[in-house]
Order: sequence, then structure tokens, then C-alpha cells
Amino acid sequence: MRPVPHLMSLADLTAAQIHWIIIHAHYLKQTSLPWLAPQAAAPGTSAALYKKPPPLRMPSQSLFNKSIALLFSKRSTRTRVAAETATVLLGGRALFLGREDIQLGVNESLRDSARVIGGMCEGIFARVGAHEEIEELAQHSPVPVLNALSSLWHPTQVLADLLTLHEHAQLFSATPNESGFAPSAPTPTQHVRGKGKLPRLPPLRPLTVAYVGDSANVLHDMLVTYPRLGHTIRVASPENEKYRAPKPVWDRLVQLGIEKDIFWTADPREAVHGADLVVTDTWISMGQEAEKEQRLKDFQGYQVTEQLCREGGAKPDWKFMHCLPRKEHEVDDEVFYGPRSLVFPEADNRKWTIMALFDLLFGKWDLLEQKKDILPDGATIPKASS
Amino acid sequence: MRPVPHLMSLADLTAAQIHWIIIHAHYLKQTSLPWLAPQAAAPGTSAALYKKPPPLRMPSQSLFNKSIALLFSKRSTRTRVAAETATVLLGGRALFLGREDIQLGVNESLRDSARVIGGMCEGIFARVGAHEEIEELAQHSPVPVLNALSSLWHPTQVLADLLTLHEHAQLFSATPNESGFAPSAPTPTQHVRGKGKLPRLPPLRPLTVAYVGDSANVLHDMLVTYPRLGHTIRVASPENEKYRAPKPVWDRLVQLGIEKDIFWTADPREAVHGADLVVTDTWISMGQEAEKEQRLKDFQGYQVTEQLCREGGAKPDWKFMHCLPRKEHEVDDEVFYGPRSLVFPEADNRKWTIMALFDLLFGKWDLLEQKKDILPDGATIPKASS
Amino acid sequence: MRPVPHLMSLADLTAAQIHWIIIHAHYLKQTSLPWLAPQAAAPGTSAALYKKPPPLRMPSQSLFNKSIALLFSKRSTRTRVAAETATVLLGGRALFLGREDIQLGVNESLRDSARVIGGMCEGIFARVGAHEEIEELAQHSPVPVLNALSSLWHPTQVLADLLTLHEHAQLFSATPNESGFAPSAPTPTQHVRGKGKLPRLPPLRPLTVAYVGDSANVLHDMLVTYPRLGHTIRVASPENEKYRAPKPVWDRLVQLGIEKDIFWTADPREAVHGADLVVTDTWISMGQEAEKEQRLKDFQGYQVTEQLCREGGAKPDWKFMHCLPRKEHEVDDEVFYGPRSLVFPEADNRKWTIMALFDLLFGKWDLLEQKKDILPDGATIPKASS
Repeated sequence: MRPVPHLMSLADLTAAQIHWIIIHAHYLKQTSLPWLAPQAAAPGTSAALYKKPPPLRMPSQSLFNKSIALLFSKRSTRTRVAAETATVLLGGRALFLGREDIQLGVNESLRDSARVIGGMCEGIFARVGAHEEIEELAQHSPVPVLNALSSLWHPTQVLADLLTLHEHAQLFSATPNESGFAPSAPTPTQHVRGKGKLPRLPPLRPLTVAYVGDSANVLHDMLVTYPRLGHTIRVASPENEKYRAPKPVWDRLVQLGIEKDIFWTADPREAVHGADLVVTDTWISMGQEAEKEQRLKDFQGYQVTEQLCREGGAKPDWKFMHCLPRKEHEVDDEVFYGPRSLVFPEADNRKWTIMALFDLLFGKWDLLEQKKDILPDGATIPKASS
Repeated sequence: MRPVPHLMSLADLTAAQIHWIIIHAHYLKQTSLPWLAPQAAAPGTSAALYKKPPPLRMPSQSLFNKSIALLFSKRSTRTRVAAETATVLLGGRALFLGREDIQLGVNESLRDSARVIGGMCEGIFARVGAHEEIEELAQHSPVPVLNALSSLWHPTQVLADLLTLHEHAQLFSATPNESGFAPSAPTPTQHVRGKGKLPRLPPLRPLTVAYVGDSANVLHDMLVTYPRLGHTIRVASPENEKYRAPKPVWDRLVQLGIEKDIFWTADPREAVHGADLVVTDTWISMGQEAEKEQRLKDFQGYQVTEQLCREGGAKPDWKFMHCLPRKEHEVDDEVFYGPRSLVFPEADNRKWTIMALFDLLFGKWDLLEQKKDILPDGATIPKASS
Repeated sequence: MRPVPHLMSLADLTAAQIHWIIIHAHYLKQTSLPWLAPQAAAPGTSAALYKKPPPLRMPSQSLFNKSIALLFSKRSTRTRVAAETATVLLGGRALFLGREDIQLGVNESLRDSARVIGGMCEGIFARVGAHEEIEELAQHSPVPVLNALSSLWHPTQVLADLLTLHEHAQLFSATPNESGFAPSAPTPTQHVRGKGKLPRLPPLRPLTVAYVGDSANVLHDMLVTYPRLGHTIRVASPENEKYRAPKPVWDRLVQLGIEKDIFWTADPREAVHGADLVVTDTWISMGQEAEKEQRLKDFQGYQVTEQLCREGGAKPDWKFMHCLPRKEHEVDDEVFYGPRSLVFPEADNRKWTIMALFDLLFGKWDLLEQKKDILPDGATIPKASS
């Protein structure tokens, strides 16, 4: 028997494994999109309604007949919908078990719930409170556990960000696009039907990534990932212990040997200097509503705007990302809905990267065993710092 | 790229398109019912348990691998169960996102939610509060939005009513059925298996339809639909602005040129005069509980009973419909559970008309493009006033 | 038309029918497990990711395209997850409709809800409060109703217990296993792929089963079942009318002619005398939280421990079962997590026995018609008292 694989953070993976997930997500997306397009019907003939679609390349069906438990003790839209729709494409069924459905650790111990639910489902995708809870689930589950968000980490978000950056790689070329507009992600009709060759994942040059805001789970997975893929990361958060990365995150950075690669400041202008990409997140997470006033005060000057980035000296064609849901505190409408914003392609990619993880971790138990140099589409692994 | 089609009200469709949906729903129902019958097993042989069923005509699989978001900010049984079971038959998966799951417009703007959910699902079936909310969803969604109920319209209910009337057309013949009993809808065993011919939708003679009650979303879609299909409509509601159709509904009636075809009175007896069909709905909708006492008083005398219809001069074989859930205020047990009542076949047909819309709108994006004279089963479009 | 079959309690079935469900559940489990194993991939070749799995024996697809309503007015983990995952394997889709989703009997009468939901789904699996509620659902539903738990009965739990006992039959051999450890249930890799022969259900010798605790729905279905399958049952509950089986349960025992086979005492030591198996359940069910203090007092001395069973004279290799969720009041950690405990294989088997019932009752309407002597795998029916 293979040991049961789990994934808590991208810190658990090598750089090659992370890159391999992105390539696999891109492959699954290209394979799936034609299936999701409206069914072609020859206009004007109602008989066309009953026509069969042309044969298409089938996405992986590694979850055929299988069930994935979504144990969510916090509300969620993106992560939940991404997980449910991705499971459908892999041939399986996701069961959403929310706070009201199953009182994790209240009516029954986490240990017993993990064993029982893991005995009936083929994977557990869990969004808990304290990070220890998901570690305990993983310890007792007979099937793989994947972290859908914990107090410390948010691995699936950072994978979606990476796929989005690769898909928009041409925006970060040496000679920036004149218009500055982000072309939208490939549409279904641009994809090859049948047995044709699928487009390869575009390579991405090393970027300077600035994060402006609270040190929370999304940033933590950025910190353990971006330096190892060759990117530079610059962070601004207020001068206060609670807005800085906690010890367990620093421990992982030290362990990976990249703690020196992180530039950290309290001045958002300094953080965005030379940035290709500016990223932020909410300042008031679920459960922090009581601290709202204090936080709004502490983060004064942190709103991402054209002015901030001009004054700080971001690259002229800097782009913007945000994991959503978004409040206007963190970023103004001009940036959020403007041509620099990649937030909606980024949200779409939650689905495809989660699909890749579900396929590799839940469907094949294969994720942690793979350290190959030759990747599915013939790509080579980039030289990275680990 | 075709523009994204949406459906907010039957007022958005031509009479031919409405009729075409009914025919398509009937076709899908006849095709699907044999699949839903208990699996045949030769009695006495347990081996029969493992026998494959005979080959059957497959219902449209236009939602194969696809996901439909059910955004319901109000509780629902019929509409939700109809949508979920219809999606299964079309090969797809419906995701129910209720008030607790996703706080539409609270935690995130409607605009952002529409874009994000529409980026992961292939259709949005939305039950909102104010009608403006669903219009805003449609404006920003990259996939079709279908109105599952709004403050103004309820298109899927009226389609189910029309299918039910066609299926029971023989009850409205010139020489009424002696018994007065509504035969139940066709049962699975009555359907042709394999490649045989499916029964055609029975034609329906022009009816006189009386609506007795509050002017709410179900009535509004009746108003914009029945006159265009050749039926006469007569309405009774109390003398009070709030129980009459609001301006946006009258505007659509004027635009369709049928505002003069509506007979409106405050006397329920007058409304049911000559009626083939009497329809009512709850007087106290969700959110109106505070007005309960006032409403019960205002609607005194509006309860649908044998006596009311006899006194008002309804046709001897008048039939009854109600969209459910039903309270005894609106209709007494004698009528509701009696032989005049079509309410349960009407409820069943929520599934088949929603299936037709999901197929045409979400699966094929085809609904609004079709204005054909030759219909799938060779039927011709009835002469109607628009 | 066949009459619509329902199942409220195992008292509704003959001993042969009960045994036949266990055999069928075992067959479905063996057929399904290989499908649920991680997809094989030749280690070291990423191409293996896209390989098709070898041909496997397909589990029954009697719910293909079908929808099963889970009407749960009480929270549930095991029963719900078992039902949802079992439905997936049978090719169908379960719709969970909880207390918040559908206010059974509040917003609409039970009668109307049964008719409407039964008109759109192909089976109703209902967890209600008072047993009369599920009887009323069954009376008006056009499709089969299966009891998922009521105030009186819990048939699916006792079927899971029986399957677990058969699978662990070697633990109850004349010469007990030296180690005393329960081998875990067969793992996916132990199952035959392709067209090979599946392992038969191991026969089970007559056992002495002790139940120590409150007289609730699980015990009631044990009482009407175990004596008919040749097992001896001994019960301990406190001297108080409310902790004894109510009249409707005794009426069924009398009707089955097995009321004299039940040994009942107030002394837990006496109950476990000679026991092969000790079973308990929570003392404080949902809705009884107000009585908590009184109940903890009344059940003093009822906790299942090594000491209790030694003092009472249970067989040296006695085993333990519990339907979960478990509190420490009823059973201590040493027993619950120790080698005597069958609780987790028992929980896993909720899925397989529910799958068997869904297949036979919802998919084939066949359960109550079958009284065959020749069973699917060639087994013969055991001699039992009815």
C-alpha cells in the first residue's frame, strides 16, 4: 500500500512539483473547455438540436464514481464552486458539508469524523479554522486531505495565481504591450477540437511581485513558492507583530533556505518599487470583524491605486491580482475593474488548479511521488532556487 | 461569439418560441420517463437484477460535464428539486447556493459574484428578491441567466401550467368528460421504449382562464403569455393599488399590444364567469408575513370553492391550478384534492419545462435564436395575437 | 403497475429478505471497491497519468439518471454521506434537503410535500422526528420511501451491523484468534479486478449479542431482527418505563413470535454474560439535551469497559459496536479505540447496506417481492426462527 498523501501548503512540494501542477492544470483546462462550450447547432434547423457533438478529447476521469467531501467550517463561494465544478469534470461528485451540516469537533471528535468520512469518500478538501485542525484531520483520514484554507496556508489560491501569470506571460514581455490591456483568457472556440495538439503553457520570465497588505494565508503560500520559481517578492505590512508572518511560516522559509530572499517593509511605496505585479487581499478576514476600526486605521495608505504605484515606482505595465471577495478599502475601482486587473481570469483558474490537484492527489495519489524532469507536454522544469 | 442569452420573463419571447418550449418539454418528458421507471427484473430470477436495461432513446445530454449554479436567496422546494433533477437528466450537475451559502450582494457585489460564478458554471438559475437584482446578474454574467422567480416574474411556472393544460386538453373538449375527473399524466409504462414514435403534444383549444387573488409574479407571466396564445384571461383582485399589476408589467403588456385583452375586476364571481380554468396563488408570499391579518381581511370572499364558481358561472367542468405551496385560505380541500384539481401534474411539469429551458438556454444558447415555423415533432405554431 | 414498496423497519421483511440484502451489499461492495481505488499509474512515467484503467465489473447502475431525495429534518453525517456516496456509485444523484431547505410540515403539509417531491424524484430517504411522519410520507408518496431514522426504528444501521459481523466472522470462531485484533475490512488491492470471481460473504455462527443502554431506534431494529437470524439478544436498560421498548415495538415482536426470545435486565453485568458482541448507543439523543443530567445519573454503571465485561462474564474475545457519534459516557477510550472495536468498519458499511437498499428498493422496486432460496452468489438462506 502506498502511504496516504496529503497537501497542507505548497511548502510541502518541490519547485518541480509545483510547476508540474500548473502544466497539468493548463492541460486539463484546454481539454475541458470545448466540453463546456454551448452545443453547436446549425442555425435555422431545429433538427440540429438533437445532433451529437463531435468527438472530443476527454478530460481525466480519475474521480469516476468517486465522492469528495468538502468539509467547510467557513463560508466560501470561489473555493467551493471551483471544487464542485472541477469534480464534475473529473467524473465524480463533491459533497458540500458546511458548518450547519456537520459540527466538526463539536458533536464528534475531529479524529472520529476524519476516519468516518474518509471511509466513505475518496478525498477530503477541508476549510477549517486553526491550522492544527486540518493537521489532525490528515493524521486520521484514510484518504488524502487537501487544505482548502487554514489560518496559516492557502495553497490552491497561489496555484491559480501562477497559472494566470503564465497564461498572461506576454503582458510581462521585455517590451510591454502598447495598450496595457490584459487579453482575456482563451475562449472555448479558440481551442482545438478532436485529436489536435493542445497549446503549450506559455513560459514566464522572472517577475517582481509586490504584496501590499495583511500577512495572511495567501501571502504565506506566496512566500514559500515564488522565490523557488525564480521570482522576486517584496512585502509591505504595518509595523506590528500581528501583521507579519508568524513563526511556523518563517520556520518553513528557513527550512527551504529562502528566508533571505524576502524583502519586507512597512512602506507600501517601497514594496511596489519595480513591481511587475501588485497583489493584495482583504484586511478584515472572517472572524476579524471586531477589529475592523483598528485595522482600517493601521492599513491607512495601503489601498492599491494608480497613484500609489506611480509614486512607488512600479513598472509602467504593472498588473493587479486579488483573491476576492474584494472590498474597496484594499483597491480602488479604477485598478480593480481596469485593464491592469487579472482578478477574474485569476478567479476562473481556481477551478483548473483545484481540478489538477483533485486529479493528482485524490484520483491518483500521485502528486508527492512525482519528481520527473520530463513533463506531460514536453516542457522542462525552470531553474529555480530549490 | 454569439451574444449571451438570458430569460427574465415570457414577455421576452415570441408566442412561437413559447409554444416551441412546451413542445420541447413534452418531448424531453416522453424521452426521459422510461429511464426513470423501476428497472425491469424478470420475477423469480435474481440474475435479472444484473441484466442491462433495453436500449432507450437518450434524452439530450447538452449539460454533460457541465455545472449549473442555483442562486437562491429565498427558500424553495419545487423550483429547486425540479432544477436539480432536470440537470441530472441532461447529464450535468446543479449546485444549490442558498442564502446561507452565499450572501448575494452582502459579502461581495452582485457584479463580482455574477462574473465569478459565471466563470465556473455554464448557467445561472437565480431566485432573488427585487427584480433589479437578477437584471444586474444578467448584465455581468458571462453565461446565460434564467429567472427562477423575482418580485415581478415567474416564467418557469407558467410554462409548466401550459404543458399541463396541453396534456389534459381532452378535459376541455367541446363535449366535456362525463366524470369530470382529470386522468393522471401518462405513466412510464405507457411510453414507447426503443426507437418507437413518441406521442405528440395534444393540441389545446382556446380557453377562458380566471385568476382570483393577489397580482404577483405568476399572474404577471400569465398576463404577458395567455392572450398571445389565443386564450382569454380574467382577473379578480381587491380594489387596492398594491394588489394590481405594477407599472413595469403594464408597460410590457402595452409593448406587446395586449393590454386591452385583460379583463380585471374586484369581484371574484365576475372573474370566474365562463371559466374553463381557475387559478390562484398564495395571498401571503415570503416576506409579507407582517401584513398577514390585513391581507386575510382584504381577500375575504376570494377562496376558490365549488360555491364561488357555481355562483360566478364557471363552465360546469372547470379545472383548478395552483403553483404551491398552498394554504387553505386560497382554496378549500374539496377543490384542491378533488377531481377538478390539476395541481400535482402541474407540479410534476415544473421539472420538464425547466429541463427544456436548461437544454435550450444553458446547453445550447439557442432559445432566443429560434423562430422557426417547423417544430421538432412537425407541429405547427398556433395562430396567436402576436 | 406494481404497488409502491416502502421500508420502515426490518420487521417488515422476512429473515430471508434481510439475509439477501446483506449478501447483496457484500456483492456491491466487492464490485465497487476496485473502482474507488487510486488510479494505477506506472511509477516514473507521467504518461501513465493518461492511461485508461483496466476493465472492471460495473456495479449496478439502477439509479442511472435518477434522483433520490434525502429529506432530513435532523442533522446527520454518516447516514447522509453514506446515502450520497452510494447513490453516486449506482449512477444517480442524491439531493440533500435539510431542515433549513424544506420545512417539512410547516410551510406545506407532509401530504403535499410527499406527493410533489415524489413526483420529481425516484426515491425518498427520510429522517424525521415522530415515526408517524414517515408513515404519512409513505402513504402519499408515488415512489418508495425508506426510513433513514425515526423515533421508533433505524433499519439501515442494523443492516450495516450484520454485514460487519459477517465480514469479521472469523473473530467469532470456536477457537478465538490469539491476538484478539480485528483484521481491517478488505482493502481495494485485495479485490479481484476484471471478470474474476468475487469473494463470498463469510458465514456467521450464532452469536450472543448484548445491548447496554437506552432503548432507542437502533435497539428496536436489533430486537426484531437478531432472534430471527439465529442470534441471542440480551438487553440492559435502567428500571424506568422510558428506557424500555415502547408498545409499538413489543407489538411487532409479538406479531413475529419472538417476544419470548428477548432477555431484559436492569443490570449491565447480567446482560453481557456470555456475550460475543457488546453494543451501545448514545444515552442523550438529539432533542434530549434538557434531560442530560438525569440521564447521566440513571445510566451510571452502564459505561462499556473492560472491567464491566470481565465482571459480567462476557466471552474472552468479545467485540464492540456503536453506531456513532460516540461520547465517552457510553464507552471508554480503551474499548472504543482498542482491538475489540469494530466501530469504524461498521461505519464504513453504512454505505454498502444503504447502497443495497437503494438498488433494490429505489432502483428496482424489487425488495419486497423477493423471497428466493437461490441467492445471487449461490449462498443458501440460513435456518432462522421465521
